[in-house]
Amino acid sequence: MNHAKRVGALRRRMHSSSVAGNSIAAVLVTHLPDVRYLCGFTGSSAALAVTRRAARLFTDGRYTVQAAEEVRGAQLEIVPSNAAVTAVRWLAAQLAAQVSVGDASPKIGFDPTHTTVAELERWKAALPVARRRKLLAPVGSLVEQLRQIKDDDELSVMTEAAALGDGLFEHLLAFIRPGMAEAEVAAELEYQARLRGAEGMSFESIVASGPRSALPHGRASLAKLPKRGFLTLDFGVILRGYCSDMTRTVCLDKPTDRERSVYEAVLEAQEAAVASVTAGVACGTVDEAARGVLRKAGMADAFSHSTGHGVGLEIHEGPRVGAGQKEKLASGMVVTIEPGAYFAGEFGVRIEDMIVVTRTGGCSLTTSPKALIEL
Amino acid sequence: MNHAKRVGALRRRMHSSSVAGNSIAAVLVTHLPDVRYLCGFTGSSAALAVTRRAARLFTDGRYTVQAAEEVRGAQLEIVPSNAAVTAVRWLAAQLAAQVSVGDASPKIGFDPTHTTVAELERWKAALPVARRRKLLAPVGSLVEQLRQIKDDDELSVMTEAAALGDGLFEHLLAFIRPGMAEAEVAAELEYQARLRGAEGMSFESIVASGPRSALPHGRASLAKLPKRGFLTLDFGVILRGYCSDMTRTVCLDKPTDRERSVYEAVLEAQEAAVASVTAGVACGTVDEAARGVLRKAGMADAFSHSTGHGVGLEIHEGPRVGAGQKEKLASGMVVTIEPGAYFAGEFGVRIEDMIVVTRTGGCSLTTSPKALIEL
Repeated sequence: MNHAKRVGALRRRMHSSSVAGNSIAAVLVTHLPDVRYLCGFTGSSAALAVTRRAARLFTDGRYTVQAAEEVRGAQLEIVPSNAAVTAVRWLAAQLAAQVSVGDASPKIGFDPTHTTVAELERWKAALPVARRRKLLAPVGSLVEQLRQIKDDDELSVMTEAAALGDGLFEHLLAFIRPGMAEAEVAAELEYQARLRGAEGMSFESIVASGPRSALPHGRASLAKLPKRGFLTLDFGVILRGYCSDMTRTVCLDKPTDRERSVYEAVLEAQEAAVASVTAGVACGTVDEAARGVLRKAGMADAFSHSTGHGVGLEIHEGPRVGAGQKEKLASGMVVTIEPGAYFAGEFGVRIEDMIVVTRTGGCSLTTSPKALIEL
Repeated sequence: MNHAKRVGALRRRMHSSSVAGNSIAAVLVTHLPDVRYLCGFTGSSAALAVTRRAARLFTDGRYTVQAAEEVRGAQLEIVPSNAAVTAVRWLAAQLAAQVSVGDASPKIGFDPTHTTVAELERWKAALPVARRRKLLAPVGSLVEQLRQIKDDDELSVMTEAAALGDGLFEHLLAFIRPGMAEAEVAAELEYQARLRGAEGMSFESIVASGPRSALPHGRASLAKLPKRGFLTLDFGVILRGYCSDMTRTVCLDKPTDRERSVYEAVLEAQEAAVASVTAGVACGTVDEAARGVLRKAGMADAFSHSTGHGVGLEIHEGPRVGAGQKEKLASGMVVTIEPGAYFAGEFGVRIEDMIVVTRTGGCSLTTSPKALIEL
């Protein structure tokens, strides 16, 4: 991973952004996936301070050894307590020391979507009284915007992560038997994921059988797999920090006509949405590609969530692929496409792939079969 | 779990709190562990609005079935999008409809430590212009303060969670062999946890062997267990929502004299801190009990983190058991006691129990042996 290049890209964004006419002279990065993206540090507490000339990571004594091993493209400073407060003071001193470049009031940008009201108060309290009101400025998710477009190193890891997920699905098909608890399926899934090199799961695994498949977020329970009906498997692994995400719904026996027709409608919706993916298309258009198919099938109300979301260092990141979203897909984004239909007390179906956006269309990282599998 | 009682306790806290002389007429709860604590809902997106008379949970269509099953002591409203924004509007309408009780400017309290700057802006924008500046008020972590004191239902689950952890440690002692990858140990640990009823792990399991034991947060890697040296196992399970947390450091062969003396010093520090736990004692005093032992042993610099933290629905919650912390322990709190000593490039040792605070002392939920184990 080329971290220096990413810090450079952040500086270019700083340069082309402004707050009420004042330049962004520095950025304070505290959201941990952003910190990892920019300098490689994977610890649980840190703040990265970036100015036009310098980048410095602040963390605490638990991470002395780990930070020295991991951090690239930034200086390192171990601090006794609150890393972000120290970083704010350091940034203020850097800005004060800089020769003015005709800038009335240069700002330290921070991300308001990942800064709590209490943190901001603490940062302000650490500054000289005269500078408390004016120095810190919310600048939107500059780093998250960069992170939406995956570089080749990232796509390579994500391809591997998705393939690991496909392998796990194949393994489960041979493992699953009626009468097993959903939790046993999850245990086997997560055990195999570890053995195959995953650092962990990217979210709590969903193993939802029979009527529980009608729960879009039906985490593995102690319920036993019934002899018939649907089983929804929605899971992802974390590989070198990157998340995978896939869903397949399989039938534990022969499906009824109604089950089959719902499955086919969801599959058609999923494939229509995947087919609509290409750089330059609005996210809302992709959502509508899926939603329109289910509407025509009379299942508009049964599809009770968005079509998908960006994925990368976080399991949910931008862009949101939902109804009416105007944001446009761009080459290098990775999004999930996961429409579903849910009938409370009866059953549900969801099918999900991870799709890389390219200039010529969407390319699926998930390669498991989507035709209805009868176990 | 008696959710109605908890909402009642929150109302008493609202009643006895105020913001600049104005009463807290309502509270908006968006931090998910707080939501779960108050009404039982376990989904990933929700807002709970509590007034003096009513409580209403707002969530979206993914959770229609699940919320109806889980929510106790609150009305339920399924909303098409941003649950918190709808909750803010509902609260504002409730307050406007209430007959004034001699209250110039009743407030809707929110928790500034779990509300982002961007969320607060969105909530304000959802209110009539005249009320944007004055209606919402930060009121500290009212719910988190309640959650620090565990009730009997909670202590019962946490005792079970800690016992599950002890059973896993015992299992691993028989499983571990030199030459195995750390990740294999983590895989077995997490597989067994699932089979024994855990919903998942409460944090990324730490399996750190040989020189990696000097990393206080050394997550399981592909490194092979060496024939000799230390192995640190720090892990926890989630059982019915509640987290366990324990650490043991074992020796893969006979320890050297230096290894043994470091282990004994850490154990003495851990036991001194446990012995100092009792209701009414300041957290800083407990930290100093451990730190003082390591200081006398000439290892002050090697103990590079705090002594412990509260644990419950979250793996890290209040109180912080760190140097200089004035907050006092109270009966019903559950804290970890986990001093360690780390020597970069060489090895590290950490020993951790979960301790319930009572009026007569600390009672350990963790029961695994602490004398040095040589595998």
